[in-house]
Amino acid sequence: MAGPSSYLRFSLSIFFFSFVLFSIFIPSWYHPSNEPKLRPKRFFPTSKSPVVEEPPRICKTKTRPSSQTIHHPLDPLTAQEITRVGLILRSYPPFESSLPPIHSLSLHEPEKPEVLAWEKGDPLPPRRAFVLALSSGRTHELVVDLGSGRVEAHSIESGSGFPPLTLDDLVAALEVPFASAEFNESILARGVLLSDVKCITPSSGWYGQAEEEKRRVIKVQCFDQEGTSNFYMRPLEGLTMTVDIDKREIVKFLDSGRGIPIPKSAGTEYRYGSVEEEVGCDSAPPLKPISMEQPGGPSFSVEDGHVVKWANWEFHLKADHRAGLVISRARVRDPETGALRSVMYKGFVSELFVPYMDPDDGWYFKTYMDAGEFGMGVTAMSLVPLNDCPRNAYYMDGIFASSDGTPYSQSNMICLFERYAGDISWRHSESPLTASQIRESRPKVTLVARMASSVGNYDYIFDWEFQTDGLIQVKASLSGMLMVKGAPFENTKNVPEDYEMTGPLVSENVIGVIHDHFMTFHLDMDIDGSNNSFVNVRLEKEETPPGRSPRKSYVKARRLVARTEGDAKIKLKLYEPSEFHVINPSRLSRLGNPAGYKVVPGGNAASLLDVDDPPQLRNAYTNNQIWVTPYNRSEQWAGGLLVYQSRGDNTLATWSERNRPIEDRDIVLWYTVGVHHIPCQEDFPVMPTVQLSFDLKPVNFFESNPILHAAPYFEKDLPVCTMAASF
Amino acid sequence: MAGPSSYLRFSLSIFFFSFVLFSIFIPSWYHPSNEPKLRPKRFFPTSKSPVVEEPPRICKTKTRPSSQTIHHPLDPLTAQEITRVGLILRSYPPFESSLPPIHSLSLHEPEKPEVLAWEKGDPLPPRRAFVLALSSGRTHELVVDLGSGRVEAHSIESGSGFPPLTLDDLVAALEVPFASAEFNESILARGVLLSDVKCITPSSGWYGQAEEEKRRVIKVQCFDQEGTSNFYMRPLEGLTMTVDIDKREIVKFLDSGRGIPIPKSAGTEYRYGSVEEEVGCDSAPPLKPISMEQPGGPSFSVEDGHVVKWANWEFHLKADHRAGLVISRARVRDPETGALRSVMYKGFVSELFVPYMDPDDGWYFKTYMDAGEFGMGVTAMSLVPLNDCPRNAYYMDGIFASSDGTPYSQSNMICLFERYAGDISWRHSESPLTASQIRESRPKVTLVARMASSVGNYDYIFDWEFQTDGLIQVKASLSGMLMVKGAPFENTKNVPEDYEMTGPLVSENVIGVIHDHFMTFHLDMDIDGSNNSFVNVRLEKEETPPGRSPRKSYVKARRLVARTEGDAKIKLKLYEPSEFHVINPSRLSRLGNPAGYKVVPGGNAASLLDVDDPPQLRNAYTNNQIWVTPYNRSEQWAGGLLVYQSRGDNTLATWSERNRPIEDRDIVLWYTVGVHHIPCQEDFPVMPTVQLSFDLKPVNFFESNPILHAAPYFEKDLPVCTMAASF
Repeated sequence: MAGPSSYLRFSLSIFFFSFVLFSIFIPSWYHPSNEPKLRPKRFFPTSKSPVVEEPPRICKTKTRPSSQTIHHPLDPLTAQEITRVGLILRSYPPFESSLPPIHSLSLHEPEKPEVLAWEKGDPLPPRRAFVLALSSGRTHELVVDLGSGRVEAHSIESGSGFPPLTLDDLVAALEVPFASAEFNESILARGVLLSDVKCITPSSGWYGQAEEEKRRVIKVQCFDQEGTSNFYMRPLEGLTMTVDIDKREIVKFLDSGRGIPIPKSAGTEYRYGSVEEEVGCDSAPPLKPISMEQPGGPSFSVEDGHVVKWANWEFHLKADHRAGLVISRARVRDPETGALRSVMYKGFVSELFVPYMDPDDGWYFKTYMDAGEFGMGVTAMSLVPLNDCPRNAYYMDGIFASSDGTPYSQSNMICLFERYAGDISWRHSESPLTASQIRESRPKVTLVARMASSVGNYDYIFDWEFQTDGLIQVKASLSGMLMVKGAPFENTKNVPEDYEMTGPLVSENVIGVIHDHFMTFHLDMDIDGSNNSFVNVRLEKEETPPGRSPRKSYVKARRLVARTEGDAKIKLKLYEPSEFHVINPSRLSRLGNPAGYKVVPGGNAASLLDVDDPPQLRNAYTNNQIWVTPYNRSEQWAGGLLVYQSRGDNTLATWSERNRPIEDRDIVLWYTVGVHHIPCQEDFPVMPTVQLSFDLKPVNFFESNPILHAAPYFEKDLPVCTMAASF
Repeated sequence: MAGPSSYLRFSLSIFFFSFVLFSIFIPSWYHPSNEPKLRPKRFFPTSKSPVVEEPPRICKTKTRPSSQTIHHPLDPLTAQEITRVGLILRSYPPFESSLPPIHSLSLHEPEKPEVLAWEKGDPLPPRRAFVLALSSGRTHELVVDLGSGRVEAHSIESGSGFPPLTLDDLVAALEVPFASAEFNESILARGVLLSDVKCITPSSGWYGQAEEEKRRVIKVQCFDQEGTSNFYMRPLEGLTMTVDIDKREIVKFLDSGRGIPIPKSAGTEYRYGSVEEEVGCDSAPPLKPISMEQPGGPSFSVEDGHVVKWANWEFHLKADHRAGLVISRARVRDPETGALRSVMYKGFVSELFVPYMDPDDGWYFKTYMDAGEFGMGVTAMSLVPLNDCPRNAYYMDGIFASSDGTPYSQSNMICLFERYAGDISWRHSESPLTASQIRESRPKVTLVARMASSVGNYDYIFDWEFQTDGLIQVKASLSGMLMVKGAPFENTKNVPEDYEMTGPLVSENVIGVIHDHFMTFHLDMDIDGSNNSFVNVRLEKEETPPGRSPRKSYVKARRLVARTEGDAKIKLKLYEPSEFHVINPSRLSRLGNPAGYKVVPGGNAASLLDVDDPPQLRNAYTNNQIWVTPYNRSEQWAGGLLVYQSRGDNTLATWSERNRPIEDRDIVLWYTVGVHHIPCQEDFPVMPTVQLSFDLKPVNFFESNPILHAAPYFEKDLPVCTMAASF
């Protein structure tokens, strides 16, 4: 019924794994009147949906438009600036005849000293853009000065790897199979309607294979969306195409799994309004409304679009197409002096590494590097008010560039909210027999900056949570859909002895393949200034000398100041514990302790892959949980600037081989948090959130507990609430 | 001015380290009209407070009186029942002449099969009490039947160790020094007013020292409360008395630190209303009110005083003098069948081990076992409404026995509340280019049962948080006061080379001594019935055979079913990871996966002490993070039933030496979470909360995601709030 001639029709329903031109679907379309209207680049009508549309929601969101003028040296490029960069590049001689595809276009941040010296009211440093463009397989790195209208720097990258994929790359890759007779024949043979086929574009990784060398390749795999919006649960197992992105041709066509049934659609739907008909005997009564309420409004302000002020904190918050959410210049007010003191110059998730644990033809390559291949900001959809973020949240848009250099808006991409969860910031009770009956307790209220990236099937929620006691908790929550493998059996008892299960059966004919997630954070700590040191405070058993004490042993803390990078490569060990401090050796407390922050790991997991396995080589920055490097403005991305098909020749691990001095210097702390995920039936068809976290905690940074003077809650201060009138 | 003759007056202001007769100070004094009035045992007028009293707070609390009749086999003893046990014991021939001090008196829970067979409406199993009484240094263990009024069982414990301390023990110990000329002389010489002296009673541990053998001894150490309610920060360093509790005499008097200044009081006060005058330049503006609001009230109910029903959960909740808070018969409703399914028969914190890391005479013994020495329930003061627990919390009292067998009430000891913190229970967004623009997200609402124990200086907050997806998160939060050591210097630069610092300087003349906290949880998991197995699901690197795959390695899960206890002694290792499942091998999902729960560690720490150091011997149950034992009703307390001065001859570690079979049996999982605490200036004078946690998470317990059908929030369902009118 469908053949190559249906190519155009079917290309409309294809799924783009990550990069998309979101703008055309976004209602709060960003077009300030004083700027050129943003031009929708292309229009894809949505194909007929096989399931009912979600009911309309009536939500009031407090979204203020992103700043259209620049107020701060770190403010991201505006739509107007992005447009101007495009114009500058089009008139730049090497690109005059044809502008190569833009793979990355964002603010080229001013040098750190310039930013640190800048104060509100000062003139802004020159605005520059950093651009990655790909021409004839070569990556051009350009710095464009917006003031002069000139390209200030232009080099061609010599290392391995390509820049992040563009929408056009994905459109191209996804269109290729539909022109292939082999593909159409396979779909037909599998009994699937071409109109029900949805494809995704897993990145190819790099494995030194001859047919993939010196060209950009990507994988295309497909699913059957018949009867469900959750097509991820219905793989056409065994069908894997390797596509040359630039030549738009299939390099390799694998079609081995026709005998594997396509898993059923029943039980896979998750959209509200679409699942109720399937409800079984769910007899748990619905919960009565509960909400975080702030009738007086929240206590934070966002000045000039990006500068967040809340309680004792002040920081710059922005969206970034690659990192998603960037916290800059985080400073906290000292309760004794009233001064704002520097804590962190810049913090963001630098790279994600997500290896799947299946060596099969259709699976071995699934070793994603989500930030550098797809972009955590590009894949961050609009947050859902009341559900992704509570009432009273403030929303911030991201303004990014498409591959032709035109700007588009990622609306409501970041939210910011105050949080009260019934937790306690400090407490103490005295027994009634002491002089006074003391019952002191202080509620904990925090500020959260949140973003959620949907990298295809998976959803990552990133929270940066600021506490009044100076602690910053960084949380990554995982939800969304499993990446599953079709299997020829419906029950574990039918699995043949010699069949290698690479994960548990999570539904009939569905294996949830085991995988890991590693998230590496770039934490440019600047404790009271840039020159800091990293101290490994080792806790070591000390034997007492004979006769010294009835105790045989105790634990001592030994402070080892890291001289070079080699001293600061840390693998966490339960039985060789340490605290990990970043201190300012020149800023001593009144007691002589250096001001510091420590990174406090939470639950964690490490990569078990061979260190010389290609995916691990490319992600060698996950070989340690902690690294410390001297600040280098070009070292932002743990897996390298160009990670697509990279060979690991330009990562945090290679930079650190130089073993540079890091004592009393401007240093960057890198922390990786990971989790092994053995899926289970509860993860089907959508995963309950799993949360990972770590803390950045002040340690002798303050002279004493900075929230000693916090007031308790009194009944008279709390709101009076009534049930909302239903309408 | 003050001498031995002041003994009586000064004994009124002494501080009891933990055990106290709380009842006499508790306003909501528990005396149901149909029961005999609870008799205040003794009256201590409070001494004149050196600091202003806290302002009155107007708080509405939703406290329902604890059940006075018994509704459930696990309901704790009522005041009436406790009184009756006392009467029975007084007429029990061996105790007729004089009732020995009662060190423990609580429900002797019926045998597990009896409880499991019982259903609401059935007659209750016989009510029994379990009693520990101490007579002439021997611990009597008695089971009293309340129905027959008879002592059913009576044995004398033969192992090492004594039962938990009583109020009388502490009163006795604290009174002893004041009768000592040496003590009074030392106080005078240190320039401290006797009326300002506050003493505490650290437990002595056991170190095989001749003068402490075969008698109960305790340490007494003192502080100067002049100018502050936070006397903990003002130690009279070097003054340590070893007191024979029963003979009421000083066994050993150490007085070595007269040259060490008593740290200043300035900056130590923390009570609201007492600290504002000290505020410096704290310019952070106060936050506007934020509150979790539920105008329709909470969604949980507490039936018959103890049975909690919320969403898909049902469990029995009670106060316990030793464990603090006990969750029993936790069951969750299956969304497919509507049936309540068993998850955990009983969960509670079984023991705490808190070793301080200082070998000095006045410090080596500080290796507390808080639950078995002092009691987490006995030390759990009334929670502060709005601050310890949010609005709409429900409060539950504890009814305990004093040493003469009379009951007293620990009011508002446990709170229960629903929690919404702006978190997400699951989400998925689709890119706009897929057929439908999907933005699905579900808010996370949970139920928390909380208790806070103040074991002298330290505060432990325990949360059991129930999620609708079946997960139980157990959290322990640490706050309160450091145990500090006086030091002769005010700045680290003045510390002599040869002076051993056992912790950082946290204030002038104040060392925050390094210490650990280990909390061991008894988790009697009963997954769909009692016969369960423990499975170590090991994640192991697998090398691919040559030619199999471009990948060199991947990770496989290998399931190792533990046959005996030896197979289930687990030290957590980052590079040898596992999942730890408790499964029901007879309860397979429709796919053939066994129903299970896994324990998911969060951040953790392990004891570094010598395994043969006396404190580690006594707490050898912390040698592994996980143990699994066959259910044995006498094995509830990881450190043994009698831990005071115990030698480690009756702990989880010794029970497990038998290497009993644990496969397909009724088994108990033990999990220990720990933290190393190197204090810092921020911990002075009261510590910001540090939180530890672990999860109990369903794994193939449900057929699929149990909250797939959860509804999102809609604006129309949320409350309408206004600012409260100030009054």
